[in-house]
Amino acid sequence: MTNSAFQKLDALGKRLEALDHAQSMLFVDEAVNMPAGGGEKRAEAMSVLAGMQHEMATAPEIADWIGAALDEDLDDMQQAAVREFQRAYTNATCLSSDFVRKQVNARLRSEQLWRELRPKSDWQGFLPAFEGVVANVREEADLRAAALGLAPYDAMMEQYDPGNRAADIDVVFNDLKTFLKDFVPQALARQEEKLAAKPLKALNAPFPIEKQKALGLAMMEALGFDFEHGRLDISHHPFCGGVPTDVRMTTRYTTAEFLSSLMGILHETGHGLYEQNLPKQWSHWPVGKARGMAIHESQSLFVEKQIARSPEFWEWAMPHVAEHLGPDAIAGWDLEDVLAHVHWIERGLIRVDADEATYPLHVILRYEIEKDLVSGALAPRDVPEVWDAKMREYLGLSTIDNPKDGPMQDVHWPSGAIGYFPSYTLGALIAAQQWVAIEKVQPTLRDDFRNGRFVGVNDWRRDNIWSQASRWSTPELLERATGEKLDARHFAEHLKRRYLA
Amino acid sequence: MTNSAFQKLDALGKRLEALDHAQSMLFVDEAVNMPAGGGEKRAEAMSVLAGMQHEMATAPEIADWIGAALDEDLDDMQQAAVREFQRAYTNATCLSSDFVRKQVNARLRSEQLWRELRPKSDWQGFLPAFEGVVANVREEADLRAAALGLAPYDAMMEQYDPGNRAADIDVVFNDLKTFLKDFVPQALARQEEKLAAKPLKALNAPFPIEKQKALGLAMMEALGFDFEHGRLDISHHPFCGGVPTDVRMTTRYTTAEFLSSLMGILHETGHGLYEQNLPKQWSHWPVGKARGMAIHESQSLFVEKQIARSPEFWEWAMPHVAEHLGPDAIAGWDLEDVLAHVHWIERGLIRVDADEATYPLHVILRYEIEKDLVSGALAPRDVPEVWDAKMREYLGLSTIDNPKDGPMQDVHWPSGAIGYFPSYTLGALIAAQQWVAIEKVQPTLRDDFRNGRFVGVNDWRRDNIWSQASRWSTPELLERATGEKLDARHFAEHLKRRYLA
Repeated sequence: MTNSAFQKLDALGKRLEALDHAQSMLFVDEAVNMPAGGGEKRAEAMSVLAGMQHEMATAPEIADWIGAALDEDLDDMQQAAVREFQRAYTNATCLSSDFVRKQVNARLRSEQLWRELRPKSDWQGFLPAFEGVVANVREEADLRAAALGLAPYDAMMEQYDPGNRAADIDVVFNDLKTFLKDFVPQALARQEEKLAAKPLKALNAPFPIEKQKALGLAMMEALGFDFEHGRLDISHHPFCGGVPTDVRMTTRYTTAEFLSSLMGILHETGHGLYEQNLPKQWSHWPVGKARGMAIHESQSLFVEKQIARSPEFWEWAMPHVAEHLGPDAIAGWDLEDVLAHVHWIERGLIRVDADEATYPLHVILRYEIEKDLVSGALAPRDVPEVWDAKMREYLGLSTIDNPKDGPMQDVHWPSGAIGYFPSYTLGALIAAQQWVAIEKVQPTLRDDFRNGRFVGVNDWRRDNIWSQASRWSTPELLERATGEKLDARHFAEHLKRRYLA
Repeated sequence: MTNSAFQKLDALGKRLEALDHAQSMLFVDEAVNMPAGGGEKRAEAMSVLAGMQHEMATAPEIADWIGAALDEDLDDMQQAAVREFQRAYTNATCLSSDFVRKQVNARLRSEQLWRELRPKSDWQGFLPAFEGVVANVREEADLRAAALGLAPYDAMMEQYDPGNRAADIDVVFNDLKTFLKDFVPQALARQEEKLAAKPLKALNAPFPIEKQKALGLAMMEALGFDFEHGRLDISHHPFCGGVPTDVRMTTRYTTAEFLSSLMGILHETGHGLYEQNLPKQWSHWPVGKARGMAIHESQSLFVEKQIARSPEFWEWAMPHVAEHLGPDAIAGWDLEDVLAHVHWIERGLIRVDADEATYPLHVILRYEIEKDLVSGALAPRDVPEVWDAKMREYLGLSTIDNPKDGPMQDVHWPSGAIGYFPSYTLGALIAAQQWVAIEKVQPTLRDDFRNGRFVGVNDWRRDNIWSQASRWSTPELLERATGEKLDARHFAEHLKRRYLA
């Protein structure tokens, strides 16, 4: 098949993979190792490499190769590969270079302004830049919509989760919202009852960083993280980066407590397991990469929420905590004392600090607002009022005098990332739905966790999620894996079991 | 000057710099951080990036740009930039792709075979591969010679040190050889006398790694290393890598003693200072990069040999050693006790373990042999006999039954790097010559060291070496900086002062 169109795509994939590899590792190095003075040249190098990659990925001849490859004699996987090459190519070429340049500049300025004005809670000062971003987003959404034959907001989501459609998500999110508006007060009341019966125990700080690290590494290993193909470092903002054969996870530590870092490590371990278990032989094809943001988040939330906040996990983990952090770390604690910490819920203004019960309401609020921003039903200047009204309705909190902790709290909008927020909550729903599917075929799952055995749950995810890479759209992948379409009921059942019992 | 040929070269330089940046940092990451399982994909990415860079650096239109730029209205520095673009382009394009492919394969096979056969001291098994490498080197030298209008061996050296000519080096190395054949026995006799008067004190091991690291960092800082633009890590083979704005040095530690790691750190600090002080605004032009191997080695040897093995340095350093390693580290030692260690010399078979007095004889031996290999005056199969004869003549040691520690000891020849060895000793000579030039204008230099002041010596090197980057050929740079051509006498005087006093 020498010099076939498919081979040309394959060779292109290898070149793009090398540039991806370089950029991923430079990003990790910057966050973990780079001295401050290296930043300017690093930014320059990253920008040139990104430009090279964009040039390479959008070359006009690629359209011909894709067209010709579709007529070649290819196996199923190769056909899927061509479809994903096409998807990537369309997403990369549907915006003109002029438009991208204008957009990048507007986003940079708006993000810089946001960093300056957010601490001052200065919405009015930020508004003109935000209006510019929204105008660009509308233009971008129209261009993407035209290229993809989708509605504008769907076309924006398509970048992050192929196959996500607002019409489907609306139904799911409405069910979830209805459920949560009742559930959160019930769960908070139940938490109060438990506290009245047994007060929250304080952690016996300080917890030395070296000991926390040893505990984290032991947990990562137990959960299946492969240290021949990855490592754990420290950075200001925890992330999971690198490449599938060399996954670089980071965390940060405080000696004042150990649970937030440990839970962060376990969350990133979920991302890391997905990357490490993608099919190696397709790593240079788009179809060989992780499916998208919602599925990726479902893998991290599966480990963090479904596994690592379960009572069964903590039955196994408590002796390990004592072993690594010392016998005084949680001396005299029983399982309920730990669970009171890892199941703590409260209403709050800030999405990134939210627990699993209130988090979806933060996301649904943003989803509803950004859909209306894209359609034009909502003007940027009216966002604070709408935000405040929704916060009061969903969580009983007002942000009208506090834009800093209202619509100015996230970097997403100032940086033009619209269509991304739903992925977080879709990930939580998908994680719960996977749990139910796994427990059906592995009824001893909870006992496995009590014994620190995570092989079964990993086997299922490897077969049904990880090995499938980007072979299917997000909804198709979910349905093939779990036997049903996305259904918020599983997540609701999970919350009820955990927080109302 | 929009779209001038010079601007095209400038833009090319930015793209090549970004690929350089990526490759340098990936190399550092591989040596310092990468888990073993990441190696295969890393090698693949590095090879693709190197291929991209070669493609980009050898594009035919570059010849036109260079030609046109030479006719443009350019300032002195821009003219120098074009000359260096031309030099880089000629060096990169004078070998055909077919030849390079053949050569890369032969080198890889020969290097692999060498790694396997060296521990077995199996010269006969290695000989056919070595003959292949030498045949390729002769072909390469002829191709380079034709492209550059130089003699074949000079054309090989030109890659590492532009302007180096065997005719000049022969004279210098012959003087040095004559001197050293007498000097080494005298210095050894003097060492014996001193030992008879005062025995060598043993170091009070163990020296914890964290403490050694703190000592090394303090010394680096005192010598002017900028930690805003660099850092020190650990790797199996110490090196100085990264980019000028972000210099990544490495060392390795043993708890059994601290001097070899400290001297290694100070050696690499010399390389690091050169890189950190190159002119930033030209970093993306070949003319803005460090001049070559001999000058680079002169900077590391200047710090290691001229500064950090001087008595004055140790007058200042001894209290710092006690402070960082603890009061028992060198308790009861006087300056002579330390100098007995840092001035230790002995005849040995292995170049990389050699002290500064015997090291040049190892290099001259290799220089003489490889010149004859390139010219054809010596056949590869005759190398062991010639090596043995020279070792006996220069150092009184035989290697005839020990090819492992004779001609099989270095990776350079198995990997086809011929013309590189002289740079090591040229670096030592240049370092001594710089010392003399600096002391002429800064007569209080030795007192400065006693007080831990290295600003003056750095200022001189910044003005005369570092800021000049690749503006001049190696011999021109030396002559402009020191006011005279390369002269081995300064190095000889340095040795006599240090080892015969």
